[in-house]
Amino acid sequence: MPSLTFRTVLVEPLYSGNIGSTARVMKNFGFSELVLLNPCEIDRNARIMSVHAYDVIENAMIATTLEGAVEGSNLIIGMTGLPGKTENEHKRMPALSPRKLREKLHRKSGVISLLFGREDDGLTNEELELCDMVVYIPTSPDYTSMNLSHAVAVVLYELSDIEGGETFLARHFDIELLYEHIGEVLADIDYKEHKENKTKMMVQRILGRAELTTREVYTLRGILRRIQMKVGKASGSPH
Amino acid sequence: MPSLTFRTVLVEPLYSGNIGSTARVMKNFGFSELVLLNPCEIDRNARIMSVHAYDVIENAMIATTLEGAVEGSNLIIGMTGLPGKTENEHKRMPALSPRKLREKLHRKSGVISLLFGREDDGLTNEELELCDMVVYIPTSPDYTSMNLSHAVAVVLYELSDIEGGETFLARHFDIELLYEHIGEVLADIDYKEHKENKTKMMVQRILGRAELTTREVYTLRGILRRIQMKVGKASGSPH
Repeated sequence: MPSLTFRTVLVEPLYSGNIGSTARVMKNFGFSELVLLNPCEIDRNARIMSVHAYDVIENAMIATTLEGAVEGSNLIIGMTGLPGKTENEHKRMPALSPRKLREKLHRKSGVISLLFGREDDGLTNEELELCDMVVYIPTSPDYTSMNLSHAVAVVLYELSDIEGGETFLARHFDIELLYEHIGEVLADIDYKEHKENKTKMMVQRILGRAELTTREVYTLRGILRRIQMKVGKASGSPH
Repeated sequence: MPSLTFRTVLVEPLYSGNIGSTARVMKNFGFSELVLLNPCEIDRNARIMSVHAYDVIENAMIATTLEGAVEGSNLIIGMTGLPGKTENEHKRMPALSPRKLREKLHRKSGVISLLFGREDDGLTNEELELCDMVVYIPTSPDYTSMNLSHAVAVVLYELSDIEGGETFLARHFDIELLYEHIGEVLADIDYKEHKENKTKMMVQRILGRAELTTREVYTLRGILRRIQMKVGKASGSPH
């Protein structure tokens, strides 16, 4: 049965009240899967702010590593308050708007993890590197820092009436193997080392945006293997 | 200079923290005009939740009547948690989604008042009657009641990048006169009294959805005057 499942992941939330507010707006928009990665103490503020959605918190998964939090995902989407200032910052660029994300997921099938960062510092660069796509809520340059649960509200509002479909997304784990494979090939072809990481990240962002299917991932890896074979062969001959 | 101006009106908000959260998300999305109609005491929770947007609260207008709060508006939009169960409830029906509202206001020009109701009871029927359009945020039937500032966040998110244009909306005051005029004509034509209020409300909702321009309002009133003249004449002759 094809369908889209969304997992809301709060990465190291600092304020218990925000966990409650997040639970409430999740339930408002029909979402129930909450993962809390190393959260603050969940005190009575969470209960007060969740109002009639405390069940979402009771059923939440508590994770201690990001890998555990996103386990089994097909796509990992990171929310950022910084859209990436230059084209060169491939970790953060290019960020999609929530509206665009909705369009990209139209008629897809899979588990989508939505990562929301810390109230003060957002997601770290390492956390963003793990993401297949980055989403940015377009805010006024006068005041870009949104309340955590407001950011969740806006993203879930956009995704609440999305239509799943027949296009099965590849698993993030398979895509990670593809990325590693690309790194290997860049090394095999002696791509200049100081550029390698940036280039790998750029390719990762391009493929992340492409919502790859499992079949596409296998095909791409077949091409990479072919390149590796040829490079291995080519190294022994002038051509 | 044609443009759209939005006024966020909180109708009798009960919690100071929500006023602060509303100010924050207004500033996040580039809005500054806040009107508080008979608000609760604005205490330190407002300051805490507004973070870097306390200036929005400092510059807010405090109103004591709804008429004062929406003065000078071209369109008054009421937010409701109840989309109207039957076609017969013309006060609440048909409600637009925020996305649809955005489409309707595209390339319009005027002052738009966005009315958000009390945390517990929303807007009264009398307040909704004053509105030209009603907006409903589509929520899950399991839990329809949203946090006030979440509702503001979703609506302002949709409207944040709207493009104003050359179509000047009629003033709400002129539209009110048109509605009164329609009421007169319904009386003049001896429209069955038990239906009159419902019908007047239905016509009001239809015209509210139509985003009338000043010229259109004048033309419609000309038609109504013509009807009144003919009815007046007709009463003295067989035809």
